[in-house]
Amino acid sequence: MSPIRAVILNYMVQYEMTRLDASFAALSDPTRRGVLEQLGRAEASITDLAVKFRMTLTGMKKHVGVLEQAGLVATEKVGRVRTCKLGPRRLTEEMAWIEEYRQLWASRFDELDKIVEELKQKEKIDERKRRE
Amino acid sequence: MSPIRAVILNYMVQYEMTRLDASFAALSDPTRRGVLEQLGRAEASITDLAVKFRMTLTGMKKHVGVLEQAGLVATEKVGRVRTCKLGPRRLTEEMAWIEEYRQLWASRFDELDKIVEELKQKEKIDERKRRE
Repeated sequence: MSPIRAVILNYMVQYEMTRLDASFAALSDPTRRGVLEQLGRAEASITDLAVKFRMTLTGMKKHVGVLEQAGLVATEKVGRVRTCKLGPRRLTEEMAWIEEYRQLWASRFDELDKIVEELKQKEKIDERKRRE
Repeated sequence: MSPIRAVILNYMVQYEMTRLDASFAALSDPTRRGVLEQLGRAEASITDLAVKFRMTLTGMKKHVGVLEQAGLVATEKVGRVRTCKLGPRRLTEEMAWIEEYRQLWASRFDELDKIVEELKQKEKIDERKRRE
């Protein structure tokens, strides 16, 4: 690979990693997950969301800011009201990461099952030999 | 619902929410995601992991602690060596949450597409009326 391609590839990997960091961190809070579920049903202003989640405006602004940084929420200010709606990201990479992990997990435990099964078989054979 | 059932249900919901908090937070760091991928291939000691991820033992211990708290890693100390392997959780709830979100997202954007389509149709009709 040419050095420039390596740099670009590295940059892309870094970028995707940072994006996963931001989205998983955004999802690690129950209020933020609730806001996403809410916006999945209808747009809402920051004030609506603050009332719904029994939170101060400042607190809700912070949560929305974290979601916006992660590309999960988009906001638009019209006059004095800031309206929030779902952002462009639909968690495709996050889903892919978890799916890959689950496959690794399953094959890892299948492997361990096999080892346990082999040990059991070996034990049976040893026992038979002892009895003979 | 009886009060005691309501309390139990509430407790279960709370528990699941806290679990999602812990697992998404655990996944929000590239080293921790790397450790999970690594342990998906083979067990490793904390020292192995520290070397592999170019990190101090203390730093790696902290990361493994976060993963262990989230049920994603299990550790066992034999003599002086602490061996790490994948924990019991296979991210089923996390996957389900993301899947549900993606469905919400898709139906939300379908709805917006419909509204845009309706507006376009209306515009065409208005234009035709103006021309007549």
